[in-house]
Amino acid sequence: MTFSATDHRAMARALQLAARGLETTTPNPRVGCVLLREGEIVGEGWHRRAGEAHAEIEALKMAGDAARGATAYVTLEPCAHHGRTPPCAEALIRAGIARVVAAMEDPNPLVAGRGMALLREAGIPAASGLMAAEAHELNIGFVSRMTRGRPWLRLKAASTLDGKTALNNGVSQWITGEAARRDGHRWRARACAVLTGIGTVRADDPQLNVRAVPCERQPQRILIDAQLDVSLSAKILQDGKCLVAAAVADEAKVAALAARGVEVVVLPDAAGKVDLPALMRELGRRGFNEIHAEAGFRLNGALLREGCVDEIVLYMAPMLTGDAAQGLFNLPELSALDKAIRLDLRDVQRIGGDLRLIARPLPA
Amino acid sequence: MTFSATDHRAMARALQLAARGLETTTPNPRVGCVLLREGEIVGEGWHRRAGEAHAEIEALKMAGDAARGATAYVTLEPCAHHGRTPPCAEALIRAGIARVVAAMEDPNPLVAGRGMALLREAGIPAASGLMAAEAHELNIGFVSRMTRGRPWLRLKAASTLDGKTALNNGVSQWITGEAARRDGHRWRARACAVLTGIGTVRADDPQLNVRAVPCERQPQRILIDAQLDVSLSAKILQDGKCLVAAAVADEAKVAALAARGVEVVVLPDAAGKVDLPALMRELGRRGFNEIHAEAGFRLNGALLREGCVDEIVLYMAPMLTGDAAQGLFNLPELSALDKAIRLDLRDVQRIGGDLRLIARPLPA
Repeated sequence: MTFSATDHRAMARALQLAARGLETTTPNPRVGCVLLREGEIVGEGWHRRAGEAHAEIEALKMAGDAARGATAYVTLEPCAHHGRTPPCAEALIRAGIARVVAAMEDPNPLVAGRGMALLREAGIPAASGLMAAEAHELNIGFVSRMTRGRPWLRLKAASTLDGKTALNNGVSQWITGEAARRDGHRWRARACAVLTGIGTVRADDPQLNVRAVPCERQPQRILIDAQLDVSLSAKILQDGKCLVAAAVADEAKVAALAARGVEVVVLPDAAGKVDLPALMRELGRRGFNEIHAEAGFRLNGALLREGCVDEIVLYMAPMLTGDAAQGLFNLPELSALDKAIRLDLRDVQRIGGDLRLIARPLPA
Repeated sequence: MTFSATDHRAMARALQLAARGLETTTPNPRVGCVLLREGEIVGEGWHRRAGEAHAEIEALKMAGDAARGATAYVTLEPCAHHGRTPPCAEALIRAGIARVVAAMEDPNPLVAGRGMALLREAGIPAASGLMAAEAHELNIGFVSRMTRGRPWLRLKAASTLDGKTALNNGVSQWITGEAARRDGHRWRARACAVLTGIGTVRADDPQLNVRAVPCERQPQRILIDAQLDVSLSAKILQDGKCLVAAAVADEAKVAALAARGVEVVVLPDAAGKVDLPALMRELGRRGFNEIHAEAGFRLNGALLREGCVDEIVLYMAPMLTGDAAQGLFNLPELSALDKAIRLDLRDVQRIGGDLRLIARPLPA
């Protein structure tokens, strides 16, 4: 199947609709759907949150009888299984849809193509791959969980132009400006959880919730705290939506945390620290798609070293503090430049008076 | 005098012509001239190098009799003094120019306005200020020397995204790519001199000349070497176009350097180091407009601390080396963020696979 300009326009609209669910669909993917008949949109819909209708069902509801003979554009292959809702592929067939275009197949390799197959068996031409890159980016965390069994970890950091995140006395608030702070909260808002380390909690006692922008669903928090040193009065624990990852199972502390609604997972590595890759797998099992990490240079370095960082969002303030201040990433000393971590620099933008870089570590 | 769209177009052309002298006019400013009569360019010219004709004279030569009644657009106020060449203001008057528009007045406050006055005394309407900001930027070093008695110092550095310039074992070649290297040589080519420190000479033994791009005039070199430790075989000394700034007058070493055509200026400060602000004044006296500094983090930090840095050209490679590697600027430890050096971030561009930032330190 080749795709026309009309197909592209309709899919672009479906992607736009899907993006409305950016901050709410977790653990489900963000999905949009457009029904087009004789060049006119007769139905559109998007998935709002888990347990509520899928995008296709919303669009069919809006279209009513007008769905008959329409082309359905969906940003993700329609589901073929009975989950919390009946399969969308069946609903499209029943509604008399004449053709289905999906941006991408289901990223879960075990079920990919089943929805498309169901449609084709019903005699409906069905193709995927239109604006696949955009659809993939929109659900990069969901794709990561389905294909790698772990979330997409996005590390947010703020530094000076000379790569410093804080003064040696710990002063770091605020290196970057108000616009960068708001932008940072937008990234938090789309994440399933905000992750930090005990060092940051001790230094700043942050809430790590979304405050600077409107937010329908607060992300959960994840605290890496190998020795369970966290104070029971730490702000991050107060709303009971925090998961603590530890390396020791101190029963009294675990019980005290549990009494506050805080769960502890114990995942020690050989060195007595939290096994970060194991934690990522655990978070994948728990349905976390995107993790937003904001931590100090030690945990930042550890996440990077252990291959847990998929993306870096780095805000750079136009200032210099000199090399006595604290760096971005605690990494072992390198003997040669070819051992440096190379990045794919994907985006550079000015955010207020600061600069924002988005980069992804390349495979070594 | 108000300026028309035609005036703007003609001055934009004059600025374009002036920029042709970017790498060759030193110690003179870059100047362009356009003669416009009845909407047509009848003459244009630019200043090539000191001792050769000024832009106005070139344009008048091209126009011949057609200059009579034309408007002259010059990027800098025509000179009124007898220097190596006769005053251009007089030449314009003699040629029968009907109106003169200058982008900016002579930046030397002692002579500013004299050229314009001479023209007005001859009954020629003369105004300045059209595209003044562009003209100012084009001759930022000349303006600096005329108004502050010192050159414009542009510091070039290359770092990783986490602000590292080299590994701790000194390995730094090449953090950034070929395109950034070529771009860096373009900045060298426009400078009157390339400045570095003895640390860099000892570590890398660089030539610090222009090789990666075509170059008509090699910039001079300036080496900061407080104790005159430089080896007589250092590459930077080999073409006799190097000035060494020292804090001690070791007679044997000075004589050995002189025998190679290398001059030594001795400018100690109270701490026994080279007095950098005094060196800047000395370079101003010697007619240096733009200095291009490429040094290590110690000299970079010293230049910044002493207020000698006017502009930073920072190439950032998309890689991370971690905090064990060497930083950009050696500065004293700060106690508060409001003591950080704030920058005006003027330009951000991708150069090949790297990022180039241009920033200017703001007054404290």
